[in-house]
Amino acid sequence: MKRGPSSSQRIGILTGGGDCPGLNPAIRGCVLRALDHGWECVGILEGWKGLIEGHSTPLGIAEVDDLMGRGGTILRTSRTNPYKKEGAVARCLATIKRLRLGALVAMGGEDTLGVAARLFKDYRLKVVGVPKTMDNDLSATDYTFGFDSAVTIAVEAAERLKDTGRSHRRIMILEVMGRHAGWVALYTALASGADGVLIPEEPVSLSSLVADLRAVYRRRQTALLIISEGVSLPDKKAAAGREGGGQEALDEFGHMLLKERGTGEQIADYLEQETGIETRVAVIGHIQRGGPPTVFDRILAVRTGVKAIDFIAEGQFGQMVAVQGTKLVGVPLAKATGQLKLVSQDWLALIRALQK
Amino acid sequence: MKRGPSSSQRIGILTGGGDCPGLNPAIRGCVLRALDHGWECVGILEGWKGLIEGHSTPLGIAEVDDLMGRGGTILRTSRTNPYKKEGAVARCLATIKRLRLGALVAMGGEDTLGVAARLFKDYRLKVVGVPKTMDNDLSATDYTFGFDSAVTIAVEAAERLKDTGRSHRRIMILEVMGRHAGWVALYTALASGADGVLIPEEPVSLSSLVADLRAVYRRRQTALLIISEGVSLPDKKAAAGREGGGQEALDEFGHMLLKERGTGEQIADYLEQETGIETRVAVIGHIQRGGPPTVFDRILAVRTGVKAIDFIAEGQFGQMVAVQGTKLVGVPLAKATGQLKLVSQDWLALIRALQK
Amino acid sequence: MKRGPSSSQRIGILTGGGDCPGLNPAIRGCVLRALDHGWECVGILEGWKGLIEGHSTPLGIAEVDDLMGRGGTILRTSRTNPYKKEGAVARCLATIKRLRLGALVAMGGEDTLGVAARLFKDYRLKVVGVPKTMDNDLSATDYTFGFDSAVTIAVEAAERLKDTGRSHRRIMILEVMGRHAGWVALYTALASGADGVLIPEEPVSLSSLVADLRAVYRRRQTALLIISEGVSLPDKKAAAGREGGGQEALDEFGHMLLKERGTGEQIADYLEQETGIETRVAVIGHIQRGGPPTVFDRILAVRTGVKAIDFIAEGQFGQMVAVQGTKLVGVPLAKATGQLKLVSQDWLALIRALQK
Amino acid sequence: MKRGPSSSQRIGILTGGGDCPGLNPAIRGCVLRALDHGWECVGILEGWKGLIEGHSTPLGIAEVDDLMGRGGTILRTSRTNPYKKEGAVARCLATIKRLRLGALVAMGGEDTLGVAARLFKDYRLKVVGVPKTMDNDLSATDYTFGFDSAVTIAVEAAERLKDTGRSHRRIMILEVMGRHAGWVALYTALASGADGVLIPEEPVSLSSLVADLRAVYRRRQTALLIISEGVSLPDKKAAAGREGGGQEALDEFGHMLLKERGTGEQIADYLEQETGIETRVAVIGHIQRGGPPTVFDRILAVRTGVKAIDFIAEGQFGQMVAVQGTKLVGVPLAKATGQLKLVSQDWLALIRALQK
Repeated sequence: MKRGPSSSQRIGILTGGGDCPGLNPAIRGCVLRALDHGWECVGILEGWKGLIEGHSTPLGIAEVDDLMGRGGTILRTSRTNPYKKEGAVARCLATIKRLRLGALVAMGGEDTLGVAARLFKDYRLKVVGVPKTMDNDLSATDYTFGFDSAVTIAVEAAERLKDTGRSHRRIMILEVMGRHAGWVALYTALASGADGVLIPEEPVSLSSLVADLRAVYRRRQTALLIISEGVSLPDKKAAAGREGGGQEALDEFGHMLLKERGTGEQIADYLEQETGIETRVAVIGHIQRGGPPTVFDRILAVRTGVKAIDFIAEGQFGQMVAVQGTKLVGVPLAKATGQLKLVSQDWLALIRALQK
Repeated sequence: MKRGPSSSQRIGILTGGGDCPGLNPAIRGCVLRALDHGWECVGILEGWKGLIEGHSTPLGIAEVDDLMGRGGTILRTSRTNPYKKEGAVARCLATIKRLRLGALVAMGGEDTLGVAARLFKDYRLKVVGVPKTMDNDLSATDYTFGFDSAVTIAVEAAERLKDTGRSHRRIMILEVMGRHAGWVALYTALASGADGVLIPEEPVSLSSLVADLRAVYRRRQTALLIISEGVSLPDKKAAAGREGGGQEALDEFGHMLLKERGTGEQIADYLEQETGIETRVAVIGHIQRGGPPTVFDRILAVRTGVKAIDFIAEGQFGQMVAVQGTKLVGVPLAKATGQLKLVSQDWLALIRALQK
Repeated sequence: MKRGPSSSQRIGILTGGGDCPGLNPAIRGCVLRALDHGWECVGILEGWKGLIEGHSTPLGIAEVDDLMGRGGTILRTSRTNPYKKEGAVARCLATIKRLRLGALVAMGGEDTLGVAARLFKDYRLKVVGVPKTMDNDLSATDYTFGFDSAVTIAVEAAERLKDTGRSHRRIMILEVMGRHAGWVALYTALASGADGVLIPEEPVSLSSLVADLRAVYRRRQTALLIISEGVSLPDKKAAAGREGGGQEALDEFGHMLLKERGTGEQIADYLEQETGIETRVAVIGHIQRGGPPTVFDRILAVRTGVKAIDFIAEGQFGQMVAVQGTKLVGVPLAKATGQLKLVSQDWLALIRALQK
Repeated sequence: MKRGPSSSQRIGILTGGGDCPGLNPAIRGCVLRALDHGWECVGILEGWKGLIEGHSTPLGIAEVDDLMGRGGTILRTSRTNPYKKEGAVARCLATIKRLRLGALVAMGGEDTLGVAARLFKDYRLKVVGVPKTMDNDLSATDYTFGFDSAVTIAVEAAERLKDTGRSHRRIMILEVMGRHAGWVALYTALASGADGVLIPEEPVSLSSLVADLRAVYRRRQTALLIISEGVSLPDKKAAAGREGGGQEALDEFGHMLLKERGTGEQIADYLEQETGIETRVAVIGHIQRGGPPTVFDRILAVRTGVKAIDFIAEGQFGQMVAVQGTKLVGVPLAKATGQLKLVSQDWLALIRALQK
């Protein structure tokens, strides 16, 4: 029940970028904590777009009463960037003034937080950032909420594929989210006990993939491969260097790459052709985004929301709430969004130890 | 503990076609019930293929102790049809003789049961059929196990899509299984409260689909559409007849159809173009097959397995175990596989009543 | 879009008795179907209590938009019986008149429907009943919604207990709902592959229970027993007749019965003492009631809700919507609630076949 | 693929104390990592008991192939303590010699690790500890596997109770695990958005509990309270000091305490009596132990298992694998088990902020 420096003010909250499980608990954390300071919260609808267009909604205790288990974001979201629209930044500032917002909590990924960083830098906007990314690729924080939920859904899918793989003696492939970083694929592979994983951070060696899966298949008559959507396949020329595949196979593979097909399907075709083993692929896609957050994400998100209000109370603006170990700390927004957190050598060593 | 006509015999069990949740409980039902008659069960591996090649495995109480919650089939499966392989039928009969099988339980869909029907007709093979299809399209039985599990997985996916749809104000499309019959799509739409459903049984009217979704969208700022993989889109010429779309749109849509893309994606592109509303699609694919069976499927499957043995004990061969109301009854295999059960007018009326 | 006999009217909907998954989908079914007739729905709050006290709420499309996956009942519920309160029946009739209700849909179990039956008989009230009981013990219908969801939760719990039982080599007992009928226990036992089940319909033979579990334990080093809360233990005198237990054991067991402990705990103590095997019990209790309905319950419930409105349109009052096979039919309310549906010999034979 | 100091040896693995989700993935981590060193693993059955009695089982790749999603422990467990049995320590050492174990991995809680610490101290036993406790109350590590899974199950139960609470306008109480530390109750309350939580670390003020729940109830017509099994109620004398309850109420409450009833039920009775609001309690008990581990627990457990083998390779004996932030580090076993980690002021402040 401690009091902040300002005895009464309004806090704006917005969520930007792709939706993910945890945003609602984070909103709840903000709203309930703000009450301790006697502050009122206002929801800005659809991210920065709502600030540009002046769309807002009251956020009281009734609105956040039942948010812990709800996926998505009640404030809705968009990818609108005010710095990419003529006059939009000025309109954001005008809305803040009109709504008499004493401070702003911006929840989102690299883009949303990038705008927050710039508004803080350019206008000393009293903004605090709450990071969210299902890919877990923000370098300034150990974990972001949404990630554990995304992996949990992917692992359930992987386990279903295993049943089918065993029954039909197939190689099963699951393509999961992760454009630049392979965390989702890596964790999914670890947690489902998969036999292989392809991530953007590592060059794909098709020949060693074939050899590994063949070895597994000999033992178990099935195999499971997890791949990141962002994995890049070797081009035809690179592929030509590999051992054990004739020119014909290469030509066909080259042909495949020409067709507009998903990475998963291309790899499935290739594996089936090289190994003679029936191979099927599933793409989890948007199914991975929604649904109730896991306990881990709920706790992380609600703590983060509370902390964002504490930062405001302490006058710590231009910061993002980051988790380091069991603690929540502040990281300057400018630093927070600069660098991608890629899968490190430690984790690669771990996954290799577990894929025999 | 009643005794069958034969005081001691061996029963062969095989599973063919696509795997589905419920096969393992059905196997368990057979094996445990056979013990009441003092009979021994033998697993034939990979459907008819195992009978052709003579691959079998013992099936005692230990093998079925923990099968109620396990997806797939421990006997593995294949799509091999002995009637399509030179000399294969004779080899099936030889295996039956060599393994001294007094009777055979064949679990599978139209193809597997079709082979059983023919072997019964041609050779009076002592066979009993256990139907299984995730599509629920066998006309001789009210329900087949696997269907409830498949719909349950699809509904979970649909609910995740709703979170994202609401957050981003999008139309979300989920493409589910169902090549010829739309039961999975229909039940998924009913159980998830979807705003529209496209099934193979009904001609798709793109213009009324657009109108319906627009109306829903006005009210809720999001919409959910479920489609069967087997739905057929109107061709360009047919599409030309519709109201409200210019020539340009038609040309683009015709162009889309040329590309090798899934039905869901084609419809998503079309809707986005016609309505101006962001539209995303997810294809559930193989994720829908595996996983632990639901309670409904477990009970139905284990009862069916027990009944199959009872049929053998009563000398009722050439029959399939069908469910009618709360009862399990016998249906001649010849009849069982002839006709597809399509979504009826009653159900179409129901779904229309619920989509406002 | 067919029209009923009355071109415009208001339909009251109430839910009484214990809450269960499926009530909300049933409400949705009513409200959306009523729109086809141009009718308006009104929610009566907390069952008959709301009718007595005149508490109601509007029920339009927005209120039922997102009800398919929601447990409990948005109309709330109570066990109030107007026939047991002085002047309450008259007040119910007055509320109906004041709210200008053309007809009433009463959703509930034996008590709620019993009141509906009496109001129909005494005052020709235009009422249609929608049955709901987690115990599945209404004789006039094959299934009631809520049951499949309750069993699903119990089976999840049972599977968790199996892990612990195996790890500690224990006998695990799960006590589930079912005061008078053992359907929940029976289905839970079937679907989880339990080694024993005690239901109210069968006299408990402690000596044969001990013998059966000992046999299972020898094979698997663990055992799982499901019991109905309503199971009645043999008294001391009856227990004295059993073989193999000394006077001391009997005395201790008699002593146990004196203490106010749950049936599950009493049986656990007895089994541990007789077999020397560590035995633990879990009581699922209220955890079994809530949560999202299963697909089976959603479909059954929403269909039942739609059918209730169809009955009103057809002037079929004093009826309950029952499921028989795949069809929904009408059963006179007077008959519907008279007799309990107990577990039949068929099912007992089935469970015996599966517990070896 | 790095090599340890010993080119070939056998590693014993045992699991002791209560079973919990994560033990199987941890075993898998050990076995697969040991292969990198060319080492063989041997499972010691039922914790220290197996070492005393010489019961072991081979642990190769086939045994751990499908362990990531499996609850409990395939090595089984017991609470046997060799230091409490005459001659048992000597027999442990003899078994180690007979099985030619080069090192031992002991997985368990305070008791199991306490024995490991003493064997290391007394005999320089080459032992590495892997901590496991569902209560999360080991002070030397940020998290232990099993905890996230336990909370996840409790949160599901809490959400089911909320449906019933809302429908019946009741106060619902969920009693969860946690004898000495309230972490499970605290996390369950946070993640389910509960309105109150009672933990062993804080003295229970019944009067302020009543006041808080009354305030919540006024707003929402329902309330959810989570309590630790280990919470201690104020005795009659203490209770007498509270405001607002008459002597009669106190007497009745004192009477309640005399009966052998669970803490949850006592509190339920008290609340119902003081507030006049229907109150129901559910005790999660053993249901909370089993089931598939969550993703968080799987990853933590498998990493911990791998690290235990790395410690052996590095000759770091007498250590427990602890998690600190994102890193796994070694902590001397002697220190690891000394002190209970209790819920800290930070967390109490957080939960207070979220319960309005």
